[in-house]
Amino acid sequence: MEDQERFVPQPEDRFTFGLWTVGNRGRDPFGDAVRPTIAPTTIVRELSRLGAYGVTLHDNDLVPIDATPAERDRIVREFKAALDDHHLAVPMVTVNLFYDPVFKDGALTSAAPAVRRFAVDKAKRAMDLGHELGATIFVLWGGREGAEVDAAKDPRDALRWYRESLNELTDHIIRNGYPMRIALEPKPNEPRSDIYLPTVGSMLAFIQTLDHAERVGVNPEVAHAKMAGLNPVHEVAQAIDQQKLFHIDLNDQRIARFDQDLRFGSDDLKGTFYLVKLLEDSGYDGPRHFDAHPYRTEDIEGVWQFARGSMRSYLAYREKVRRFHQDGEIQAVLARIQKLHSEGPAIDGEASLNWWRERGYAYEELDQLVTELLLGMR
Amino acid sequence: MEDQERFVPQPEDRFTFGLWTVGNRGRDPFGDAVRPTIAPTTIVRELSRLGAYGVTLHDNDLVPIDATPAERDRIVREFKAALDDHHLAVPMVTVNLFYDPVFKDGALTSAAPAVRRFAVDKAKRAMDLGHELGATIFVLWGGREGAEVDAAKDPRDALRWYRESLNELTDHIIRNGYPMRIALEPKPNEPRSDIYLPTVGSMLAFIQTLDHAERVGVNPEVAHAKMAGLNPVHEVAQAIDQQKLFHIDLNDQRIARFDQDLRFGSDDLKGTFYLVKLLEDSGYDGPRHFDAHPYRTEDIEGVWQFARGSMRSYLAYREKVRRFHQDGEIQAVLARIQKLHSEGPAIDGEASLNWWRERGYAYEELDQLVTELLLGMR
Amino acid sequence: MEDQERFVPQPEDRFTFGLWTVGNRGRDPFGDAVRPTIAPTTIVRELSRLGAYGVTLHDNDLVPIDATPAERDRIVREFKAALDDHHLAVPMVTVNLFYDPVFKDGALTSAAPAVRRFAVDKAKRAMDLGHELGATIFVLWGGREGAEVDAAKDPRDALRWYRESLNELTDHIIRNGYPMRIALEPKPNEPRSDIYLPTVGSMLAFIQTLDHAERVGVNPEVAHAKMAGLNPVHEVAQAIDQQKLFHIDLNDQRIARFDQDLRFGSDDLKGTFYLVKLLEDSGYDGPRHFDAHPYRTEDIEGVWQFARGSMRSYLAYREKVRRFHQDGEIQAVLARIQKLHSEGPAIDGEASLNWWRERGYAYEELDQLVTELLLGMR
Amino acid sequence: MEDQERFVPQPEDRFTFGLWTVGNRGRDPFGDAVRPTIAPTTIVRELSRLGAYGVTLHDNDLVPIDATPAERDRIVREFKAALDDHHLAVPMVTVNLFYDPVFKDGALTSAAPAVRRFAVDKAKRAMDLGHELGATIFVLWGGREGAEVDAAKDPRDALRWYRESLNELTDHIIRNGYPMRIALEPKPNEPRSDIYLPTVGSMLAFIQTLDHAERVGVNPEVAHAKMAGLNPVHEVAQAIDQQKLFHIDLNDQRIARFDQDLRFGSDDLKGTFYLVKLLEDSGYDGPRHFDAHPYRTEDIEGVWQFARGSMRSYLAYREKVRRFHQDGEIQAVLARIQKLHSEGPAIDGEASLNWWRERGYAYEELDQLVTELLLGMR
Repeated sequence: MEDQERFVPQPEDRFTFGLWTVGNRGRDPFGDAVRPTIAPTTIVRELSRLGAYGVTLHDNDLVPIDATPAERDRIVREFKAALDDHHLAVPMVTVNLFYDPVFKDGALTSAAPAVRRFAVDKAKRAMDLGHELGATIFVLWGGREGAEVDAAKDPRDALRWYRESLNELTDHIIRNGYPMRIALEPKPNEPRSDIYLPTVGSMLAFIQTLDHAERVGVNPEVAHAKMAGLNPVHEVAQAIDQQKLFHIDLNDQRIARFDQDLRFGSDDLKGTFYLVKLLEDSGYDGPRHFDAHPYRTEDIEGVWQFARGSMRSYLAYREKVRRFHQDGEIQAVLARIQKLHSEGPAIDGEASLNWWRERGYAYEELDQLVTELLLGMR
Repeated sequence: MEDQERFVPQPEDRFTFGLWTVGNRGRDPFGDAVRPTIAPTTIVRELSRLGAYGVTLHDNDLVPIDATPAERDRIVREFKAALDDHHLAVPMVTVNLFYDPVFKDGALTSAAPAVRRFAVDKAKRAMDLGHELGATIFVLWGGREGAEVDAAKDPRDALRWYRESLNELTDHIIRNGYPMRIALEPKPNEPRSDIYLPTVGSMLAFIQTLDHAERVGVNPEVAHAKMAGLNPVHEVAQAIDQQKLFHIDLNDQRIARFDQDLRFGSDDLKGTFYLVKLLEDSGYDGPRHFDAHPYRTEDIEGVWQFARGSMRSYLAYREKVRRFHQDGEIQAVLARIQKLHSEGPAIDGEASLNWWRERGYAYEELDQLVTELLLGMR
Repeated sequence: MEDQERFVPQPEDRFTFGLWTVGNRGRDPFGDAVRPTIAPTTIVRELSRLGAYGVTLHDNDLVPIDATPAERDRIVREFKAALDDHHLAVPMVTVNLFYDPVFKDGALTSAAPAVRRFAVDKAKRAMDLGHELGATIFVLWGGREGAEVDAAKDPRDALRWYRESLNELTDHIIRNGYPMRIALEPKPNEPRSDIYLPTVGSMLAFIQTLDHAERVGVNPEVAHAKMAGLNPVHEVAQAIDQQKLFHIDLNDQRIARFDQDLRFGSDDLKGTFYLVKLLEDSGYDGPRHFDAHPYRTEDIEGVWQFARGSMRSYLAYREKVRRFHQDGEIQAVLARIQKLHSEGPAIDGEASLNWWRERGYAYEELDQLVTELLLGMR
Repeated sequence: MEDQERFVPQPEDRFTFGLWTVGNRGRDPFGDAVRPTIAPTTIVRELSRLGAYGVTLHDNDLVPIDATPAERDRIVREFKAALDDHHLAVPMVTVNLFYDPVFKDGALTSAAPAVRRFAVDKAKRAMDLGHELGATIFVLWGGREGAEVDAAKDPRDALRWYRESLNELTDHIIRNGYPMRIALEPKPNEPRSDIYLPTVGSMLAFIQTLDHAERVGVNPEVAHAKMAGLNPVHEVAQAIDQQKLFHIDLNDQRIARFDQDLRFGSDDLKGTFYLVKLLEDSGYDGPRHFDAHPYRTEDIEGVWQFARGSMRSYLAYREKVRRFHQDGEIQAVLARIQKLHSEGPAIDGEASLNWWRERGYAYEELDQLVTELLLGMR
């Protein structure tokens, strides 16, 4: 393959984008929208042209919260026609349980039964919509499931209500015979001071307490793991270890700041490499879902550059992974380390203990080789 | 009870200290030790005098790593005599798998089978020592189980080795009939760039994959949760929700910096209050274990002030919890919120939706009352 | 004074609030507004009722960006009437150079001369408005003066443009004979990935390079210092040391996360105490300006609780400072430390060196006393 | 030049290493030393062999704190001989005011006049040593100049003592006619909870208050800026803007954690690129000083791999900077942005305002090109 062709995305690469990502208007806490709304059908057309496999959506990205049933049906029909025309799939849908003021103190963990009822029903309708669009993954990000004032709500109650809500949702899937699984998306904070179940680990642990744990996994997001200063590679590895990596949100972020949702692979080049390496080495075959948004400095042309760059970067990192496995010097160092590990003496006294104490692991050498591989020096 | 008596610790308060905490010599990455070694038997005497319930230890806090069996037995005998003399218990022991250079690339997750073998055997001997001292909790902090260079070790392999090691350790407990449970202690980083299983959640999730999950729980540490910017109260709440809070390490820390191990309740007064509230409200009946160390500015007298202050603070926060539950105004606000939650209308259209959207939750008022309670203004 | 009276704010306490703080509608990156707009004149009336000294404003908090001159004059006239009626001052105004999309890549540091021209002129008009309202402090927060992509703009150019803009603004003040000083407000990030001149220190250093440095100082914000994990007390102390504390923004924040703007003194009780201690001990006589916003869970009633709580808390911390200086035991410990410092031997060899090495500073004891003072135990 | 030759360091590249960096023994707060001491003369020989320009040192890296004058002279003589033999320079020395317990509550900011006296005299002796070795830069890192308990010391006093100490040190330089300048090195925390003057900005501001400000500049360290989540490029740019970049410490670090001192350019590839770009574009001609240490997993061979990798990486990033300036597509995008900035209309009403509001800045496209340049794709 020609070098440049390697980086042209194809549907089989399974790249997907949320409608809300390329459609992001650039509003932030300190500033107004900078870009016009882009119609979902336009997004479908442009993403298809750029080589994406699919789009994803929150219920209200497509259907306004106050649409009549007739409006809803018309919108969905037109959207499906656009998907057909442009050969785009909808492998995942999700539900917006965070934008409306009704959810200001939580949706699935609201202390108010009426609000929980409304939230669960809204999620069910989003599942129905997802099924109608062919989605088999239902992502759930509980953006308002958290607290500023722990006096107001016992976190143990919140977990109980969260569990009851999830159990209702898996029941809905099973009762309707949907071939659908739920992927929970953790985030440590923002917009709440603390969000419940803030990490991949806490979600994985929580899942074990559900009635239908087999239907529920995780949707790790790179930026969310980094907001807690955690290594996204290790977070995702644990999800894989427990067969729970149902979906993944790819983007970039600097540690310990507001949710930046930067273009995938644009900030932490080394961390991105290891993440792609893990996904590829582990045989993950789900969508590569970009959940980021263009800088606020961009116009519409910048939006498509953003989308194109996201996919090109994934392919570039994937190519680096291929080279890593073929690089003679890197593999020789790894083999040397491996040999040391397997052939070092059993520890049965001071001499063998000292042997191991004095061993060097050649990780500076290895890391430098990886750095140079990433920089295109090998 | 007289006001000042409330804050005099008693053995039934179940306060325990690690030998390594009051015994900390103040060495840090940039500076030498500032205090002399304190003999374990002296620590036992002084902690008893101050009202503690027990002491805890790493194997090598008591028995040097290179002690002969005879030396080991003598040391343990003398230590037990001191415990008896001063009526102090050893409810928990742990194992040091991080100080010796042999563990520099991991102990239970070392890629070298010989190192893992040595680490597991060392842990078993520490369990035997713990059983001999009457401990029923075995804490495991995998300080070196992590990485700087993800190219060197697949994190999935690390999890597999961790699991195999843990399964050996629970086998050892069961085979020997020890009434002992293991409490895993997560930490996000330091001394490794990234430590595997960095949060309470990831440990809880991992435990579900073990052969004898019922024998394994967690030992959350306040400082470690804060290093990841997480809310320790929510971390501990999930552990309680899953019946896995086997032990707890109490200290203080500022978010997003090196491991400070500050005196319990000395930095984050509000966060500490909520943690004590959760422990007391949930009926946690295990040790209140202080895992902190005196500032490096302190001499021996400062060490005992540190120990005394740790316990006084716990009692002070516990008293605040009692007052929280008895405070008429606070309880009235909570009842008002509760009533709103339970009596608000079912959501069945724009009117009921708007009713909920417009509701205020009085959390500013509640939080101000809690703040004033903490400041002793009520 | 009766205990509760101590905590009733009076105009002489110099408490001020931004119109945008109590007027905050609760919009955030993931959610819609939850509260209606409150008219500036209503804010004036309510703050006056609660005991505030003044209000502050961005130009566009009062006058819409597209108002005609006639509309502008009417609005200002009515606002001044309300100020008169309710005896409220406007000690400070500021300019909004961040909300409008025109500023998306910077205002005073935009690479486009036309945008810089517009921004400087807008700031001058805001100064004129401020002077008309009696303000003698002009705060400048450069919320968009930053970057995501350092390839696009040399940070040295940004500093140069910033300097030229500031020089124009001090010229405007001087030429018009306004008794006005500028207070620069640093912030490390959000909404930009990195904001130029991110800390109090960098602003103080920058000021020295201006044509009229004597007219320019800083407006430190507690939350902004904490976002960088810095100690706000030390930041403010340096500003005082350099006679540059012209104004201060009081609020609260957890380290290393999105800009929370929590109610003053509501999260970090100990840090707040030390900040109030520094302000009071140093004789700072400027406004105590609250730049925070009510939780998104609140309705209008919660907004006023928020305002009331902010002021009560300041008074409560001020009272703690008074007690700190009168507490016999605390002062005795401080005197003991002081004596040790002044009477310890000159270092002229191993013996005197060892004397100092072995000294303990009683900081655990002191810190515990402060903690207990804060908790109302003394 | 052949491609691989580009990355072979030469003395004219001005690479320097601290004796304490390659000599680091791997001790950390949780673990013992893992490597033997390397004699300073061995370090000189090996660094010379690898292509370095010089070495740097703390006084006590070379001369033990308790050496007799005769021992001191012998050690210095032998070290100078080694420098001569291997053609290595000592462009910078520094003083250790943090390791000895005498400095546990500060050196230059100790509240004890005797300790300050000792610290200032020790620094003067280190300056004398530096002058003897030919150093013209004297770095000062005040590792213990900070606090855990703000009640114990007024930060304004600390600044005053710091200033007096600095004034004494510049007096010493001037009185002795040394061609020496002082470079202050900020760090936000570790080993103290908060270190005074924590950022480049605060140091620059402080310098303006000194008697001989012209003799004092800064020594920014990449890792220290990142510990506060700041952008090292912006920090260094301000130092350059104020003609105060006297020296620089190159290493790597993840935000918001313990001081990792990772190999330069090994973690944040994009950030490193921009830093090298700034240094090269600005014509900085001082030493490129590596202040990092090998992973604790390494033996002596790994130490030299670490040193070699540090220099190779700098050269690799420098080469990327060269290509950035020559890349036709990158330069075309920059020219397009520049043209937009300079040719856009003056803002004089809604139409011109809207013109600017609707502009896109092509930063996604630019950033993607930079990313691909770094990945060796162009």
